[in-house]
Amino acid sequence: MNDSHLSDPLTDRIRQRIDNKTKPLGALGHLEELALQIALIQQTETPILSNPHVIVFAGDHGLAAEGISAYPASVTYSMVNNFIAGGAAINIFCRQNGLQLLVCDVGVAGTFSATSDTFVKYKIRPGTRNMRQEPAMTADECEAALDAGKTLVNGVKYRDCNIVGFGEMGIGNTSPAALLMHRMTGLPLTQCVGRGTGLDDAGLARKLSILEEIADRYAHLTEPMAVLAAMGGLEIAAIVGGMLQAAEQGMVILVDGFIATSALLVARALNPAVLTHAIFCHQSAETGHQQMLKALQVKPLLQLDLRLGEGTGCALAYPLVQAAVAMLNDMATMDSLQ
Amino acid sequence: MNDSHLSDPLTDRIRQRIDNKTKPLGALGHLEELALQIALIQQTETPILSNPHVIVFAGDHGLAAEGISAYPASVTYSMVNNFIAGGAAINIFCRQNGLQLLVCDVGVAGTFSATSDTFVKYKIRPGTRNMRQEPAMTADECEAALDAGKTLVNGVKYRDCNIVGFGEMGIGNTSPAALLMHRMTGLPLTQCVGRGTGLDDAGLARKLSILEEIADRYAHLTEPMAVLAAMGGLEIAAIVGGMLQAAEQGMVILVDGFIATSALLVARALNPAVLTHAIFCHQSAETGHQQMLKALQVKPLLQLDLRLGEGTGCALAYPLVQAAVAMLNDMATMDSLQ
Repeated sequence: MNDSHLSDPLTDRIRQRIDNKTKPLGALGHLEELALQIALIQQTETPILSNPHVIVFAGDHGLAAEGISAYPASVTYSMVNNFIAGGAAINIFCRQNGLQLLVCDVGVAGTFSATSDTFVKYKIRPGTRNMRQEPAMTADECEAALDAGKTLVNGVKYRDCNIVGFGEMGIGNTSPAALLMHRMTGLPLTQCVGRGTGLDDAGLARKLSILEEIADRYAHLTEPMAVLAAMGGLEIAAIVGGMLQAAEQGMVILVDGFIATSALLVARALNPAVLTHAIFCHQSAETGHQQMLKALQVKPLLQLDLRLGEGTGCALAYPLVQAAVAMLNDMATMDSLQ
Repeated sequence: MNDSHLSDPLTDRIRQRIDNKTKPLGALGHLEELALQIALIQQTETPILSNPHVIVFAGDHGLAAEGISAYPASVTYSMVNNFIAGGAAINIFCRQNGLQLLVCDVGVAGTFSATSDTFVKYKIRPGTRNMRQEPAMTADECEAALDAGKTLVNGVKYRDCNIVGFGEMGIGNTSPAALLMHRMTGLPLTQCVGRGTGLDDAGLARKLSILEEIADRYAHLTEPMAVLAAMGGLEIAAIVGGMLQAAEQGMVILVDGFIATSALLVARALNPAVLTHAIFCHQSAETGHQQMLKALQVKPLLQLDLRLGEGTGCALAYPLVQAAVAMLNDMATMDSLQ
């Protein structure tokens, strides 16, 4: 909740509206805060949710060559094909909960023959450079990835979407996320690095050692965009752009897990107002995500020990967001009770 | 999860099915356990959820005369009218998430003129007796309340419902729930008694003192049915009956908050198999509910700081249950990846 709203007349009216519903004061807990937040984002006592989308950005990571993931980089390509075919978890959860899914290739190391209304080709390069040797992206490439995110958000906005979640697919991307977390929160790298999709103890130790080397290499960079270009990923930069544009457009942003929240940390550094628009959907089982949410002083809607990404937390939490809005709009008031 | 299933061939096949989905091993966390539980309840690798219901039982409490609630007893009657009119939180959440709602008067102190397809009159008496002076129910009344629950569950079962949640409305009912918790778990009453719909410190102290007196009065009772009759409520007993019957019929049981879980504790004492059928939907903000779930060694799907009852936790968690089943049935398998 944005503190600047705490005592304006609209906030007071929304709070009164919530308090006058047929329930004990505060009895709907987190859903009441959520209803207030959405009403304030839309600057109305009667918010609506319109044409919800999840946009999944996919990209590969040059760093994957260093063996920092339990899965080979080729899985990124396979999983994007799975998204296009409709068989991944995010397809299932979006279908079930009535969200539209868009999948966007901003940097997968492979060419897709498949076409689909919900698949957008916006490839900037086939995977980032190996950040152990050189910055993951040039400044231009990083800007281009931000533009991809902005363009897709504008696209769904034109189709009357006012709530958008961001997902990602990119083997190796817990490494850039951990590095961005480390730089954006100031927390030690040991608190930021986790097992990703399933590293064993030896793999985790190796990952930490490589990421420490990389953090040292780019310790001189201070501008958020420079940090993002050096240690981010194309799909992460696209999410940063998407979040910035969604806030700019007055939309509600659904934040998924560890990777998406690392993007939010960068987006917030570029425009603090992003946080006002953000609903934190799920606390991931990935080490570090809990610390991220704590650093942001926010509470997630779900804690289901997921560690999948793809935007699955957004799709799963969406019915709770709908419930909060329906409560505000449709519940009876105390004075109507007989 | 029922340990007796842990190594049978069906369990192995379901686990294999889940592990072969296009995701890292275990990456869907709690949803994977949920999918396994539902598949085992239905004894199939391809479970389905059919015609989901929430049944809300309403009843008044003679004990309310002792001033153990922040709200007057008449609110029970008003809120049931609100359920019938469709304006309460549970109406909104059921509509939104596609569950059917049934409301059943088993013991409200007031006569309803309204009729509705979704309102069932099954009044046993207009409120329990004041348990500070005599047992809340006679054995016959308590049995009749259980029968009400069983009858309604059979009714929805005949309409192809295979998943049912239980809600309640009854001003004062955190008191019987705390007493039942105390007796069924052995935890000290101080850990079981909370503020309910909003008692202040003085009110809470008064409530605790009265409940201690009542616990002493009935300390000699040991049979679950005798404990339930002395210190329960008509709506709580109806839920006990409903849960027993749902388990008997092989249905999935959605468990709401503090009151509903107190009913589950009694139902489990009467038939331990009930626990195998139970999905714990939400951890309530009411003191004691966390302890209840800990005593049962179960993890709730949601933790939204709700303290409303009505079955709202069941209705809000239902999309997660659907997601778990959809994952098991619809997600692609690893061998289909290109």
